[in-house]
Amino acid sequence: MPGKTGIVLSAAIGLAVIGAGYWGPNLVRNAQATSGLRLEYLCDLDAERARRVLGGYSTVRVSDSLEEVLADPAVHAVAIATPAATHLPVAMAALEAGKHVLVEKPLAANYADGRKLVEAADSRGLKLMLDHTFCYTPAVRHLAEIIAGGELGTIQYLDSVRINLGLVQPDVDVLWDLAPHDLSIFDAILPPDIHVTEVAAHGSDPIGAGKACVAHLTLRLSHGGMAHVHANWLSPTKIRTMVIGGSAKTVVWDDLNPSQRLSIYDRGVDRSPAGELTEEKRARTIVSYRVGDMVAPALGEREALRAVMAEFAESITQDRRPLTDGHSGLRVLALLEAASESLRRGGVFVDVKQEERV
Amino acid sequence: MPGKTGIVLSAAIGLAVIGAGYWGPNLVRNAQATSGLRLEYLCDLDAERARRVLGGYSTVRVSDSLEEVLADPAVHAVAIATPAATHLPVAMAALEAGKHVLVEKPLAANYADGRKLVEAADSRGLKLMLDHTFCYTPAVRHLAEIIAGGELGTIQYLDSVRINLGLVQPDVDVLWDLAPHDLSIFDAILPPDIHVTEVAAHGSDPIGAGKACVAHLTLRLSHGGMAHVHANWLSPTKIRTMVIGGSAKTVVWDDLNPSQRLSIYDRGVDRSPAGELTEEKRARTIVSYRVGDMVAPALGEREALRAVMAEFAESITQDRRPLTDGHSGLRVLALLEAASESLRRGGVFVDVKQEERV
Amino acid sequence: MPGKTGIVLSAAIGLAVIGAGYWGPNLVRNAQATSGLRLEYLCDLDAERARRVLGGYSTVRVSDSLEEVLADPAVHAVAIATPAATHLPVAMAALEAGKHVLVEKPLAANYADGRKLVEAADSRGLKLMLDHTFCYTPAVRHLAEIIAGGELGTIQYLDSVRINLGLVQPDVDVLWDLAPHDLSIFDAILPPDIHVTEVAAHGSDPIGAGKACVAHLTLRLSHGGMAHVHANWLSPTKIRTMVIGGSAKTVVWDDLNPSQRLSIYDRGVDRSPAGELTEEKRARTIVSYRVGDMVAPALGEREALRAVMAEFAESITQDRRPLTDGHSGLRVLALLEAASESLRRGGVFVDVKQEERV
Amino acid sequence: MPGKTGIVLSAAIGLAVIGAGYWGPNLVRNAQATSGLRLEYLCDLDAERARRVLGGYSTVRVSDSLEEVLADPAVHAVAIATPAATHLPVAMAALEAGKHVLVEKPLAANYADGRKLVEAADSRGLKLMLDHTFCYTPAVRHLAEIIAGGELGTIQYLDSVRINLGLVQPDVDVLWDLAPHDLSIFDAILPPDIHVTEVAAHGSDPIGAGKACVAHLTLRLSHGGMAHVHANWLSPTKIRTMVIGGSAKTVVWDDLNPSQRLSIYDRGVDRSPAGELTEEKRARTIVSYRVGDMVAPALGEREALRAVMAEFAESITQDRRPLTDGHSGLRVLALLEAASESLRRGGVFVDVKQEERV
Repeated sequence: MPGKTGIVLSAAIGLAVIGAGYWGPNLVRNAQATSGLRLEYLCDLDAERARRVLGGYSTVRVSDSLEEVLADPAVHAVAIATPAATHLPVAMAALEAGKHVLVEKPLAANYADGRKLVEAADSRGLKLMLDHTFCYTPAVRHLAEIIAGGELGTIQYLDSVRINLGLVQPDVDVLWDLAPHDLSIFDAILPPDIHVTEVAAHGSDPIGAGKACVAHLTLRLSHGGMAHVHANWLSPTKIRTMVIGGSAKTVVWDDLNPSQRLSIYDRGVDRSPAGELTEEKRARTIVSYRVGDMVAPALGEREALRAVMAEFAESITQDRRPLTDGHSGLRVLALLEAASESLRRGGVFVDVKQEERV
Repeated sequence: MPGKTGIVLSAAIGLAVIGAGYWGPNLVRNAQATSGLRLEYLCDLDAERARRVLGGYSTVRVSDSLEEVLADPAVHAVAIATPAATHLPVAMAALEAGKHVLVEKPLAANYADGRKLVEAADSRGLKLMLDHTFCYTPAVRHLAEIIAGGELGTIQYLDSVRINLGLVQPDVDVLWDLAPHDLSIFDAILPPDIHVTEVAAHGSDPIGAGKACVAHLTLRLSHGGMAHVHANWLSPTKIRTMVIGGSAKTVVWDDLNPSQRLSIYDRGVDRSPAGELTEEKRARTIVSYRVGDMVAPALGEREALRAVMAEFAESITQDRRPLTDGHSGLRVLALLEAASESLRRGGVFVDVKQEERV
Repeated sequence: MPGKTGIVLSAAIGLAVIGAGYWGPNLVRNAQATSGLRLEYLCDLDAERARRVLGGYSTVRVSDSLEEVLADPAVHAVAIATPAATHLPVAMAALEAGKHVLVEKPLAANYADGRKLVEAADSRGLKLMLDHTFCYTPAVRHLAEIIAGGELGTIQYLDSVRINLGLVQPDVDVLWDLAPHDLSIFDAILPPDIHVTEVAAHGSDPIGAGKACVAHLTLRLSHGGMAHVHANWLSPTKIRTMVIGGSAKTVVWDDLNPSQRLSIYDRGVDRSPAGELTEEKRARTIVSYRVGDMVAPALGEREALRAVMAEFAESITQDRRPLTDGHSGLRVLALLEAASESLRRGGVFVDVKQEERV
Repeated sequence: MPGKTGIVLSAAIGLAVIGAGYWGPNLVRNAQATSGLRLEYLCDLDAERARRVLGGYSTVRVSDSLEEVLADPAVHAVAIATPAATHLPVAMAALEAGKHVLVEKPLAANYADGRKLVEAADSRGLKLMLDHTFCYTPAVRHLAEIIAGGELGTIQYLDSVRINLGLVQPDVDVLWDLAPHDLSIFDAILPPDIHVTEVAAHGSDPIGAGKACVAHLTLRLSHGGMAHVHANWLSPTKIRTMVIGGSAKTVVWDDLNPSQRLSIYDRGVDRSPAGELTEEKRARTIVSYRVGDMVAPALGEREALRAVMAEFAESITQDRRPLTDGHSGLRVLALLEAASESLRRGGVFVDVKQEERV
């Protein structure tokens, strides 16, 4: 087993999946397909549920005891898919047992809990990775690359719509349920010199669920730009669209159009150099328009969770930071907490705790 | 000519179109095709521009003098398509000359000016009608009918997206340019017992145009619901979508899909009666889901502006309120003013002046 | 194990999947998830390939010997996913060993071979079922129901487009590769009193592959209607659309639109009763148009192959004909053979061997 | 007025539009907007219909006498939008009166009639132009350019779908009504060294209209490729799609998607050089796949009929062949006649009369 010592052993990393609910089966399936991992356990308080997930043909062990699993030296790492409120105790127990941790979003139920986990992992030299699944899609990888490469120019605005007839969660509102996707994507694609300074959130609960089911999130960016997220559990149609407007090009990402997820438009509005204009013409002609071609880049079709598993395994064997490490999880938590505070305070802008970006 | 006296003459209503810019040609074309109207003039300060609009085969007169046009007794009504800042003097002159007025949105540059026009029209028994064109589309007519008929149940939320690569206007920001469409549509379809109480607006100007080019508008409704408008001049793709969520059904209106503009979904999330549940089950099962069929009603394809012209003519000959009268124009102005104040004040909610709805 | 005797045992049916190539893994996965089945073997000449398919966590046995598998009394049935040319020997061996058979389309490499299999199964009282997967989708089940219930009226035409950038097969042309899907769907939804009488096929091989890569198939129906299939391996975009035109309603099935696969239009052209018309008006007014609403029925999202497996298991335990039995496979083979003959003879219409429909 | 003498006068060309039915109003509108033309008459046997088309504000003269119009020396050219059966007498009369002729598709009711018109125009040095409107769209102009420039490589196949709920014509079947569009587009974009050698047509008349309402047309090209047209009056949905497959790139043209009419895919199937392969590998690996980016070129939005009018005017003033001259009309007629003969003869391939392409 690899670790701080830098010695990388060829043997696979023993993994236990904790939680056999909604997302656990996906972790199980992808862990089994990842060459660097060896799935040892599926652990759930309800052992019967875990057995059903594994089906009748599996050699993977079932356990209803986290202690048992963490005590097994064949387990080097855990992937946690339990409710957010349990992330702190489960992940902390794993870290204290010397296990690397991959955890579902959000990292924890609040920023303070999340920070404890980050510090616990850092102090032990263990990996703490967030399963920000969308960040591992070919679309987001491509977006991150072309933004880093300057193809879009300066980012002017981001607009994300994530609406569908969704499961009203018992423990969290629509922002905590859906917006982590958008916020972690923003985190993955924005250049390092741009961060979110303030957040305002508006929400409504038209069905009397006791929490916001429709929400709008406005983010002020450090360089003057704006980002917006519309999250909605009540829409009869499913929309997963993000527009990233740049000074040079603008991308429309439609995640429900597999044959053309990304459309990169050489279209936009430019500000003409004011110097060229007489005072009279200035009012009307401060802008000019580009209407060029659109390119839809060829993207591979790869299951993102497969790439998550590979990154987790690699970050352990190569003893390096995973792409979506605990700090990315903290940045998302800081945004969610600010959003919740804005919701409580009637939609005013709320400052966002600043977390390092590497 | 018909009037307050109730005498309806068979002769057509003499009309002058004022303004030969962007929208004027559409008024000219539709006025000529409306049987109850007789187009007498196209009036513009730039007579050459007016001549170009009419083309080389027209018997319609050109004038560069509003006074001349208003002095002509053959002119009973005017349709005004000049910049918003000129609506007050132009429309007031027309009303003072005893002419009925159809005016482009917004009614005036601000609420106070708009009110002067409404009062001037009311005191003279003249029609003052807003060209809220979208309210005359078959889609909005159908929406208004099924909402009034109760098919959607209680309106829970409205969400409108109106984005495209748009002309950055010299005199107004994106909210004043685009949102009047959405706000007048809301006004036309919301039941009379629901009104907007507060408005918050967030905007950004990423191209340095000196005004908001991207804006988000959140409206609080009197019964607890929420409405949202996303207006954007910088999007490379054009989107014109509105979702109207109801407790019984939800409609998605995609105005760019002529073969299926309205989709009425019998889908949604319902709150289960709490009484049926044990305390334990309550947290998880307070909601239930409907997933029924979708119906796309057959809608006629009629040019909305043709219906605007017909309504204007009919409201005069029948001496009745037009569907989108001056008060609807005032309600939209009240919302726009509140939105601008919210923009200035950093996005806080601002109370909306209440205007009668009939 | 159930059988001719009518005794239905509660024990699951032991199954072996034969062939670990393109489709085999899907059979393995779905067999494991089907409660009435017990997957005993994955059999492939290349045992290593079979092992890779099962992965590192499976209790299912691998075998490279068909004989071994067929000799095992725990195996009651086989699911065959080997190349079409091998269907005859593999399936015949299974039948001769007393095993029920589920076989990939097409049933065999030609009609005569297929007939041998049908007769072998019938004479032994064994099930011979075709994996006509699409026939088990919720969309086709719904189509079959509403056609049987008369909602569409008389079927007037069918038009199927199945094009994409496809794998050019080494052994078959595009018709034998893709058209079995369309032909088996037609077979499943057409009323029993309508059958295909003649077939004409046009094909081209623009890339020099040595076989048709683009093909058009025209089917004459016994009641005077027409059906058409466009199959194409060379299209850069994927289209999976079928239109079923009826005298009362018309359905458009877009299989790539998961949120609206079926659209049922109350639109069409009707022939007016000639008697009502004067001779003069007759030429122009023999038709009238309906433009009514469109309904998109709510369909479940179920993996079709899961339903295939369930039907195979049920047909065995209940000792009844499976929905897509050997005769449906023969009907498809008769159409494919006629199509190939038409291709060879320059596109003339070729009579289709008539096979019973029950 | 320009003519054979080559003298080009600056005065506009006097035009009469003949026929005030379905298409005539479009000719009137666009003729009025074309600077090189001067619309003198709208001529129809039903003068009242012509007056309605012109409306109440026009200075254009109405006539119900073709003789009167042709006798007027202010008329230099006519645009004919009468039923196809009348094209021969009307156009011939115009040519004999020394007028240039623009005529709706098809050129005439049959090839022999069409040839008479071509010869009459040629012998008099008059322009005879077909209103093949689609050939003047930005999409077809772009297609013609990139095909001529070699961007697509060798054309491998063409596939056109033109279906909608259409008007069942009293005088022609669906092929003669709709396919002229596709055939004239093929004619405009195919390289000069490729022509159609044979045509086969299948049709059906499921509503008893007395003529084919659904038809499929297969065209064999001189270099071995194939083209196909699906024309259908009975489809509840409108589709206007053409795929042009090339050895290098493939274009999908969706005319109903104004924001992305042309999609140029760098995707395809290539034949590997056989020499590189061992005999054993040959069967499987004779093809390779390209999956590159897609580009949607920026196209202007121009009304095609405006460009038709401009081309007609220019071809007269510059005394040159119009882009879609009488010979292109004859080539389309040759294809339609062959198609009709194939329909009569049960779908066999029928040779196509070869007409020069310049």
